[in-house]
Amino acid sequence: MSEMVKVAVDAMGGDNAPSEIIKGALEAANENSCVKICLVGAEDIIKKELEKYNYKQEQVEIINATEVIETAEPPVMAIRKKKDSSIVKALQLVKSGECDAYVSAGSTGATLVGGQVIVGRLKGVERPPLAPLIPTEKGTALLIDCGANVDARPSHLVQFAKIGSVYMESIMKVKNPRVAIVNIGAEEDKGNALVKETFPLLKNCPDINFIGSIEARDIPAGYADVVVCEAFVGNVILKLYEGVGGTLIKKVKAGMMTSLRSKIGALLVKPALKETLKEFDLEQYGGAPLLGLKGLVVKTHGSSKAIEIKNSVLQCVTFKEQKINDKIKEKITLEDE
Amino acid sequence: MSEMVKVAVDAMGGDNAPSEIIKGALEAANENSCVKICLVGAEDIIKKELEKYNYKQEQVEIINATEVIETAEPPVMAIRKKKDSSIVKALQLVKSGECDAYVSAGSTGATLVGGQVIVGRLKGVERPPLAPLIPTEKGTALLIDCGANVDARPSHLVQFAKIGSVYMESIMKVKNPRVAIVNIGAEEDKGNALVKETFPLLKNCPDINFIGSIEARDIPAGYADVVVCEAFVGNVILKLYEGVGGTLIKKVKAGMMTSLRSKIGALLVKPALKETLKEFDLEQYGGAPLLGLKGLVVKTHGSSKAIEIKNSVLQCVTFKEQKINDKIKEKITLEDE
Repeated sequence: MSEMVKVAVDAMGGDNAPSEIIKGALEAANENSCVKICLVGAEDIIKKELEKYNYKQEQVEIINATEVIETAEPPVMAIRKKKDSSIVKALQLVKSGECDAYVSAGSTGATLVGGQVIVGRLKGVERPPLAPLIPTEKGTALLIDCGANVDARPSHLVQFAKIGSVYMESIMKVKNPRVAIVNIGAEEDKGNALVKETFPLLKNCPDINFIGSIEARDIPAGYADVVVCEAFVGNVILKLYEGVGGTLIKKVKAGMMTSLRSKIGALLVKPALKETLKEFDLEQYGGAPLLGLKGLVVKTHGSSKAIEIKNSVLQCVTFKEQKINDKIKEKITLEDE
Repeated sequence: MSEMVKVAVDAMGGDNAPSEIIKGALEAANENSCVKICLVGAEDIIKKELEKYNYKQEQVEIINATEVIETAEPPVMAIRKKKDSSIVKALQLVKSGECDAYVSAGSTGATLVGGQVIVGRLKGVERPPLAPLIPTEKGTALLIDCGANVDARPSHLVQFAKIGSVYMESIMKVKNPRVAIVNIGAEEDKGNALVKETFPLLKNCPDINFIGSIEARDIPAGYADVVVCEAFVGNVILKLYEGVGGTLIKKVKAGMMTSLRSKIGALLVKPALKETLKEFDLEQYGGAPLLGLKGLVVKTHGSSKAIEIKNSVLQCVTFKEQKINDKIKEKITLEDE
């Protein structure tokens, strides 16, 4: 039997907490017997929710937490003051080694700050990037960084490239993943100051497969496996992916409802379309890991439903099995020598 | 009769030059008798193309240019060396006042550099922004800046907000246009250094309708009419719009072809869908104006077809009629006092 993977799940975070969070966590436990879930939050509420489901007692534990950090709260202050919040307590379980990983759909800011302050960075990692998988025509790409480090420096971006390569190779099984830097043109002399400084550094990295610049247009087409950028740009990319996708699907649906003819067509097309569009749904891919910490911290959408929580928890299993943190440490240290 | 609007059209620029460029320019002339086209490029080639069409001789003129600036050429050098290129000669027609406007599907870099160096900035304008219209659920929004000024300063962004307001109010007839700055969160303290510095400046602008930050997700939903950002981010937004849109439409089409049932449905849905998706096609909106110059300079997609050239030329008519440059000068000068 494989080793157990213990995941601290913030039962109180996200728009659909606690019901969808608990549901998703239990689904993950039922699917994989190596998973142990620590549900962190108000004990009485969690207990009541748990009554609805069938699950193995030994796979689920409750850790009581009396406070909740709200999305709008300034994260640094919230982490410092709300010592008995579900986020702080769940992160402490990872810090102490009691849990391997953390999953939350709650405050992004608090997770990012708490991840660094409570769990702590791996030796050598300058700034841990938030790195979600995004859908492409050919499968998925890792967008790194997308929210952790605004106004990053070139050396940070180089680490993102290395960390992203480890992730895509070990978790997503992409051989020799293609690394590209987000730019506004394909030529080497294009870009802003940050990209121009970073480009030659990436070019001279012996241990990544750097293919040069990628224009935003080519990201959905799947031209790269690891898409490197600083957090502001990454955040814009992630959110615009959602925004354009959502608007376009709405337009497609509205378009189908404009005539009787098209309405009949829509009925026929619907099942096939649903299947294809699922591939392009960000929620299918679980949450975004905050990489480079002494433990795995995963942030899922605020609007996460059970499916995303389940996928995020299961992601943690692969993460541990593949010893991603050892590999990241190795790759980062290599650079320092 | 209205005043004539003379537009210098770069007949040699873009993937589909000269045929689609000339076709589109003539369509604009045929549609609006106030338009006069100066086709700039290799005279013999242009003459041959013109033979294919019906048009009024007095609405079309040829200006011979023996050189072409290629997309890959470093723009500053190209503008300096290729004095007899279609881009340089067309821009000079605007500079001399012989033409009111310039339209090119050729090198973006050369148009941006040439626009500033040859045509010149309006008094008070620090950096002329490139500002395309992008489709939203509710109509269109102006994305300003999207390619002219990487590493911009806060004062530039404030000017973009003012210039964009003039444009949306006068050309697109949006009353009291909502101005927002692209950010990675809705709260005032979110963002990178540039956005944090710019935010209070915009808040204190008395002559724009500043509504705060906009997350990339909300741009396609149409939450703002003037979307302010520095050029790197703007370029990413514009190109990702195209990229996600293209990929998703491909997925929808492929999804419809997966079964016999869905294929039949697709036939029924197609006409209605085509109409709706047209609204979301960037090419419907003509090119992107480079605003704040002593004349109108419009850059269209490299892949422009006749429809985009036509729309770009017709855009120039409204631009002149509405005396946009006088309005921009007025708004910018107001700030200096």
